[in-house]
Amino acid sequence: MKPLYIIKIGGNVIDNSENLYHFLKDFTAIDGYKILVHGGGKVATQLSDKMGVQTQMVDGRRITDIETLRVVTMVYAGLINKNIVAQLQRFGTNAIGLTGADGNFIKAKKRPVKTIDYGFVGDLDGTSVNAENISALMQAGFTPVFCALTHDGDGQMLNTNADTIASALAVSLSRHYETTLIYCFEKKGVLQDIDDEDSLIRDIDPARYEELKKQQIIHSGMLPKLDNAFAAIGSGVKAVIIGKSDDLKQFSKNEPFGTRLSL
Amino acid sequence: MKPLYIIKIGGNVIDNSENLYHFLKDFTAIDGYKILVHGGGKVATQLSDKMGVQTQMVDGRRITDIETLRVVTMVYAGLINKNIVAQLQRFGTNAIGLTGADGNFIKAKKRPVKTIDYGFVGDLDGTSVNAENISALMQAGFTPVFCALTHDGDGQMLNTNADTIASALAVSLSRHYETTLIYCFEKKGVLQDIDDEDSLIRDIDPARYEELKKQQIIHSGMLPKLDNAFAAIGSGVKAVIIGKSDDLKQFSKNEPFGTRLSL
Repeated sequence: MKPLYIIKIGGNVIDNSENLYHFLKDFTAIDGYKILVHGGGKVATQLSDKMGVQTQMVDGRRITDIETLRVVTMVYAGLINKNIVAQLQRFGTNAIGLTGADGNFIKAKKRPVKTIDYGFVGDLDGTSVNAENISALMQAGFTPVFCALTHDGDGQMLNTNADTIASALAVSLSRHYETTLIYCFEKKGVLQDIDDEDSLIRDIDPARYEELKKQQIIHSGMLPKLDNAFAAIGSGVKAVIIGKSDDLKQFSKNEPFGTRLSL
Repeated sequence: MKPLYIIKIGGNVIDNSENLYHFLKDFTAIDGYKILVHGGGKVATQLSDKMGVQTQMVDGRRITDIETLRVVTMVYAGLINKNIVAQLQRFGTNAIGLTGADGNFIKAKKRPVKTIDYGFVGDLDGTSVNAENISALMQAGFTPVFCALTHDGDGQMLNTNADTIASALAVSLSRHYETTLIYCFEKKGVLQDIDDEDSLIRDIDPARYEELKKQQIIHSGMLPKLDNAFAAIGSGVKAVIIGKSDDLKQFSKNEPFGTRLSL
């Protein structure tokens, strides 16, 4: 199987034009099949404010009413996605900007209303990603750039978490490619001491993960991130790497980069 | 050569959800390769107003300063394009929504400043359309849906007239496909008597066109439209059809539709 790299970036890359510029240059330098997944950053909230649309967050998640869906469709699929694509083209990556509706690539189910109505938010399951269609697009010579939007297959766009999209793509495409999933975030990776960027842990396998949890080195916010990563690895993804976008050039040179989770 | 249909829609389809619904259903019913090109409609102006961005028009053309470019990128490539794509998917068309930056499909040149500075507006020439890349996308099973945006190849998005994009695509792809270009507009086609929708002229060849101009049946606003259409035909496009979007179902059933211009 040929290697595939799926790389997810968030606000700390998107909201800073210098970070974004360097990231897209380093992304271009990576050989082989690759997919970029990006979140929304601050722009959606700024535009909502300008338009008088209230941003409602519950547990760090945006409640997506119909007005908010219009805003995120404009910002994620329009402004952010197309500016990333135009810059990638300048560096020589033949990018195509996408939502899950395009090519029917990612079909989600609207989240059922329980105690909270999240509105037009889409959840993914094992059947959501159309790996054959995405593979056809990559085989035709294009590099997919996904934003955090999906559809329900019945004409409705839905808002879906970018981390979740990246993970679902990786699991589904690992049947066709030797897939590595890379999450860029604000730290160099998983740190032994959260205040010391030099205390980076290079490799974590499931046994080490259990140790680190027992020692309370990994706790709170990192736990669901790493649980999800090991779940992806258990479902066929070769490795998950968590690292800083600034350091991605090391990865393109085959040098150690971030924290690598694998079996 | 296999047939290809390039269909352009404007505000009278986009701004009316019922018209759009029927159009997309009829578009899906057309067999063979096809490309949809859409303009912007009223939404861009409405959003500009909401955001306090002034809309400046000169001779019916939008002056695209950097704020206006942000608005049209959000509205054309985000809101309108992705809603069209999600609806086409519901009808079974495997659509992918695009700007000219995606796949490096349409590279424009920023319009030089003469008496008027149009801002971030891109003009096309004979080398703008990458027919090979678009063909690769269609061969992979996807139906392109283009909005009225291009790029300069150097990281900058540009605003480009949708009629111009449709015509440039048709000319360039006519080397690979037997290409018919269809403009949907508010009338049934070219009318003998502008106030009588039953006076539709079915076929116009260059000789008939000269006659109709002499008799002043075709004048003012229709002249540049038809001049451009015959220029496209002179450059390899098989036929240009001008008709009403409501009547497109006739076309999918191989019944007469609109006014057909050809050699």
